[in-house]
Amino acid sequence: MNVRSSLQIYGIPTPVIVPGDSIADIIADSLDRAGIILKDRDVLVLAESAVATAEGRIVCLEDVCVSPVAGELAKKYLLDPREMELILQECDEVIGGVPGAVLTITDGTLSPNAGIDSSNAPEGHVVLLPENPVQSASKIRLVLEKRYSCKIGVIIGDSRTQPLRLGCVGIALATSGINPVEDARGACDLYNKPLTITHRAVADNMVSCAQLIMGEAGEGIPGVIIRGFNGDIVDEPIEMPLFSPDECMYYSNISRTGLK
Amino acid sequence: MNVRSSLQIYGIPTPVIVPGDSIADIIADSLDRAGIILKDRDVLVLAESAVATAEGRIVCLEDVCVSPVAGELAKKYLLDPREMELILQECDEVIGGVPGAVLTITDGTLSPNAGIDSSNAPEGHVVLLPENPVQSASKIRLVLEKRYSCKIGVIIGDSRTQPLRLGCVGIALATSGINPVEDARGACDLYNKPLTITHRAVADNMVSCAQLIMGEAGEGIPGVIIRGFNGDIVDEPIEMPLFSPDECMYYSNISRTGLK
Repeated sequence: MNVRSSLQIYGIPTPVIVPGDSIADIIADSLDRAGIILKDRDVLVLAESAVATAEGRIVCLEDVCVSPVAGELAKKYLLDPREMELILQECDEVIGGVPGAVLTITDGTLSPNAGIDSSNAPEGHVVLLPENPVQSASKIRLVLEKRYSCKIGVIIGDSRTQPLRLGCVGIALATSGINPVEDARGACDLYNKPLTITHRAVADNMVSCAQLIMGEAGEGIPGVIIRGFNGDIVDEPIEMPLFSPDECMYYSNISRTGLK
Repeated sequence: MNVRSSLQIYGIPTPVIVPGDSIADIIADSLDRAGIILKDRDVLVLAESAVATAEGRIVCLEDVCVSPVAGELAKKYLLDPREMELILQECDEVIGGVPGAVLTITDGTLSPNAGIDSSNAPEGHVVLLPENPVQSASKIRLVLEKRYSCKIGVIIGDSRTQPLRLGCVGIALATSGINPVEDARGACDLYNKPLTITHRAVADNMVSCAQLIMGEAGEGIPGVIIRGFNGDIVDEPIEMPLFSPDECMYYSNISRTGLK
């Protein structure tokens, strides 16, 4: 076919991941079963819940001691006080919220409930975010690159809602091997004028793409391969770039109604 | 390959779209040139700028008469007063903004600058959003379904930033043939517990996926085919569902700093 560009997206079904698993080995074994051999520029998108579970980031709610502030916020936002306590421990600030979810900020990134989720965790447990997702992505990448003798990208992905939109989309918590945001400054439009849009959230788009296959429920597809990426694979680690609150048209209009 | 699910994504290069073009015919001719024959359940993602241009939604800034309110807001947010005037005409409310962009709401949907863009418009012109994107999507779908004797989905897609994230991702303005948001209520997680996440923004994810190929610059790829979608094609029109401001953890914390 004479198309200028195309992508192939493959879901990787795996057994249920449990704490202590090597997620890289599980993915590789599952790729073998599926007959997929990784090659240069393949990008692997992994669900953060699977990575966090393998890393043992599961907390039994019965073991959580609830502080008075957590109790108060839990009442205000109709959350489990033990989960609220964990949210406070994991985030830098609770900005506000709605019944059932607080908007938190951690290291400059917004999340609902500090990314803590009870889905895909055993009964009475929750899964925290991976402690250092850039490091997790890099470790997984190294194992797979060695096994398949190629240079790939790895993205740890999560779900987010967007303002006033129904439904979740994908978001990248961290990448290894690829630049999460492409700088489009200097590029021109169809009429050779500079672009209004200056950056493309390539990694976020890749996670959204992967979510078309992985879904959110118990599909048992924690990994997705994106083949056909035409960007560069880079060896040095690249942190997720932060967006200045003053430049963000949403954040600059957000008022704080949380307690912490 | 024994993978449970896979997708193929094809970019469709076209000539530059001009007002008066039939975008459905241009896409079909370009598909023919690329050797792609549409089949059941293919989903076509189209850039809103191409659709709007074909529909003649281009405004020459010289023809715009600036009101005092537009002049005041333009000064406050460092925008072209004529563009600000068009923004006020297109949106229901200016909620606030940052230098270079105002956050607007139109029919319950947030956009930067009411979706008005000077990229991919001739010098001195801007492109407004398609007037009725659901209708646009339906018309294009009918032409293509007739030409290829199959049932497909069509999405009109745009770009958006997310709160505190650098870079643009995809967003669906309208769909025809597919349900833009999948209701995941009732689905269970790996441990057979009900999911925390209740809805999946399938159409938004498809636009983000398409943007991995179409980009934002003058690539001349206004359309992308997603093949392998396993949802249903529905004939009755489905409007983009609105999300209640009271339930939105972002919006419920947004304070109004605009003037209108």
